[in-house]
Amino acid sequence: MIYFDNSATTKIDASVLETYHSVSDHYYGNPSSLHQMGEQSRQLLTQSRNQIAELLKVSKEEIYFTSGGTEGDNLAIKGTALAKKEYGRHIITSTIEHPAVIESMEQLETLGWEVTYLSVDEKGQIDLDEFERSLRKDTVLVSLMAVNNETGSLQPLKEVGELLEHYPSVHFHVDAVQALGKIDLDLNHSRIDIAVFSGHKFHAPKGTGFVYVKSGRKLAPLLSGGGQETGVRNGTENVPGNVALAKALRLLMGNKKEVNQRFIDMKRSLLNYFSRLDKVTVFTPEESAPHIICFGIKNIKGEVLVHALEKQGIYISTTSACSSRKKDKTYSVKEMGYSIKEAESAVRISWSHINTQKEIDTFKNVFDAIYLQLKSIE
Amino acid sequence: MIYFDNSATTKIDASVLETYHSVSDHYYGNPSSLHQMGEQSRQLLTQSRNQIAELLKVSKEEIYFTSGGTEGDNLAIKGTALAKKEYGRHIITSTIEHPAVIESMEQLETLGWEVTYLSVDEKGQIDLDEFERSLRKDTVLVSLMAVNNETGSLQPLKEVGELLEHYPSVHFHVDAVQALGKIDLDLNHSRIDIAVFSGHKFHAPKGTGFVYVKSGRKLAPLLSGGGQETGVRNGTENVPGNVALAKALRLLMGNKKEVNQRFIDMKRSLLNYFSRLDKVTVFTPEESAPHIICFGIKNIKGEVLVHALEKQGIYISTTSACSSRKKDKTYSVKEMGYSIKEAESAVRISWSHINTQKEIDTFKNVFDAIYLQLKSIE
Ligand SMILES: Cc1ncc(COP(=O)(O)O)c(C=O)c1O
Ligand SMILES: Cc1ncc(COP(=O)(O)O)c(C=O)c1O
Repeated sequence: MIYFDNSATTKIDASVLETYHSVSDHYYGNPSSLHQMGEQSRQLLTQSRNQIAELLKVSKEEIYFTSGGTEGDNLAIKGTALAKKEYGRHIITSTIEHPAVIESMEQLETLGWEVTYLSVDEKGQIDLDEFERSLRKDTVLVSLMAVNNETGSLQPLKEVGELLEHYPSVHFHVDAVQALGKIDLDLNHSRIDIAVFSGHKFHAPKGTGFVYVKSGRKLAPLLSGGGQETGVRNGTENVPGNVALAKALRLLMGNKKEVNQRFIDMKRSLLNYFSRLDKVTVFTPEESAPHIICFGIKNIKGEVLVHALEKQGIYISTTSACSSRKKDKTYSVKEMGYSIKEAESAVRISWSHINTQKEIDTFKNVFDAIYLQLKSIE
Repeated sequence: MIYFDNSATTKIDASVLETYHSVSDHYYGNPSSLHQMGEQSRQLLTQSRNQIAELLKVSKEEIYFTSGGTEGDNLAIKGTALAKKEYGRHIITSTIEHPAVIESMEQLETLGWEVTYLSVDEKGQIDLDEFERSLRKDTVLVSLMAVNNETGSLQPLKEVGELLEHYPSVHFHVDAVQALGKIDLDLNHSRIDIAVFSGHKFHAPKGTGFVYVKSGRKLAPLLSGGGQETGVRNGTENVPGNVALAKALRLLMGNKKEVNQRFIDMKRSLLNYFSRLDKVTVFTPEESAPHIICFGIKNIKGEVLVHALEKQGIYISTTSACSSRKKDKTYSVKEMGYSIKEAESAVRISWSHINTQKEIDTFKNVFDAIYLQLKSIE
């Protein structure tokens, strides 16, 4: 069995699950309770927050625990919109954002906000001139993803950040769910105000995540309530989940260098292989994250390829898992200028540190046979 | 060690944690992925939803998984407000709701909604005449809790539901976080449109919960995104958490009758004991949930009592854990007509099926000494 669907979700790391288990067993007090058991839970929470902050080189007051990437994106977007509604109601984003972003934007539009959706080029990138022209006096938020979940394409965050230096009151939100541990994200020295992360994408428990919010940036709560997470994200804290999340991040960041070099080699090896197959189109642009390849066999629907591979024990996705059961799937590929037919052929391979070059080689062998069979269908 | 703070949070059940562990280990596919591993996760999710629906005697399409009670309350309130904003912007609630409700209301007020906060009597109940008078043409939502988290008091849900029969378009939301398994809630045959539940209050994992939404009632999503939970609650599903949640609910409901009789006996025993101590005031009204007693020693701050008891290994709370670290604590007791001083003396004992009459007896012995010492302080 080869699991190449890590951008959809990852298997929780065994030692992270151990941590979850043992915290659940021994430290179950509510961090809001005054007694010793509450105090222990509070300390664990603080420790976890400190660890995450240290690993990201930011301050611990800038980390807020959430239930995942979708909640993070919603908090960032709706929370900023509400907090800054007196200053303006214009937002800028791109057409290839995750549904958690796009759908948040669409909800805000029904409430009187105005959203500019920047189109992307064949590299999946917005045009910087167009971006600059779209900035307005009433712009309150720019929301762009670091790594696209369907193709691995990158947005020019640094350049956008530089342009935004002239617009200090515009908040810059980055969906970094697919980026963490895969590309460099210097939060502390960047113009990024809010960055969103999801635990289950890096072997932490499902239902966990966190958001970085630069100090001084205000967010209205999406989940109002009892004052947890300094009132920005209320609700009884998932202490075992958050401790386990911090541990998973430690593991991710500890191996980052070594693992990323392996990713780059695996990606090169697979791209070389695909370049020899004339009916294969690679949609992932050259400049992209090291752990995702999006490609298709001409005229073969992505589903067909997914099922052919799973018969051989290899698990991949029709691009984004999150949209793969929705009607309008593969939209990132389409937005990059490919035809609907091409977009419908797209599948995504995504790996993690648990995958190896050997698995890539096995994949090639399996794919040889499938390709031979499918390429002649049309 | 005696843990009497179960209304703040409970210890996860050992077998529920086992379930969580094994699902995490074996079924980690994303339910949105097309392949077999996704399909297995989808099936587990469906199974869990079916189990919950059966236990509550509702239909499976009426159950939505969330990250907890706070998210549920926010979804119910903000989701209804947004979905029905064209019909009206008036909401009715009470002054003793959980912060997840009160703060949601306050956020809506900043956005143009109008909220009526009904006061409560010494039994913690709203006045039905006043309630009826507060209903307006533009009322879209009534939000009342089933069991108050600080005192265990009950709202007259049945009577409210009967009055609402004449207002079919008003949605009736019930925060049932403290009620599940403790009092009867016949969702299927009641006027209740939305009911909110939280996993960590009944030995399920933290960060889990679910909402019942009567079929036909529309909610705008609080978490917009990839279409999970039929678009009402988006975000990659916490499959192990939700499977474990369903299991915890099965355990809760399976033992309900036997356990509740034990609760009633424990409560009677403790109330009898307190009635003999003339400096003790019991704030919990006679008609109340069987698992909570809120009381205080005259002129002794709740914190003092909490710490005195924890020195003897007994863990209780200064009323709601959720508000016990906020400034404005013990507000339910105050709203029931007690003085600030009385309210500040309030503490809450709350038990669960893991507690026993023997622990109540131990508590009495420990309390005897503490009471002797504290009652003379003034
Ligand atoms: C880029 C991106 N943003 C947001 C999300 C949503 O995160 P989560 O799955 O934790 O809700 C995902 C995952 O599907 C993603 O890939
Ligand atoms: C009555 C009531 N409603 C809502 C909540 C919030 O639920 P959660 O702790 O799961 O966020 C609580 C718990 O503190 C509660 O007691």
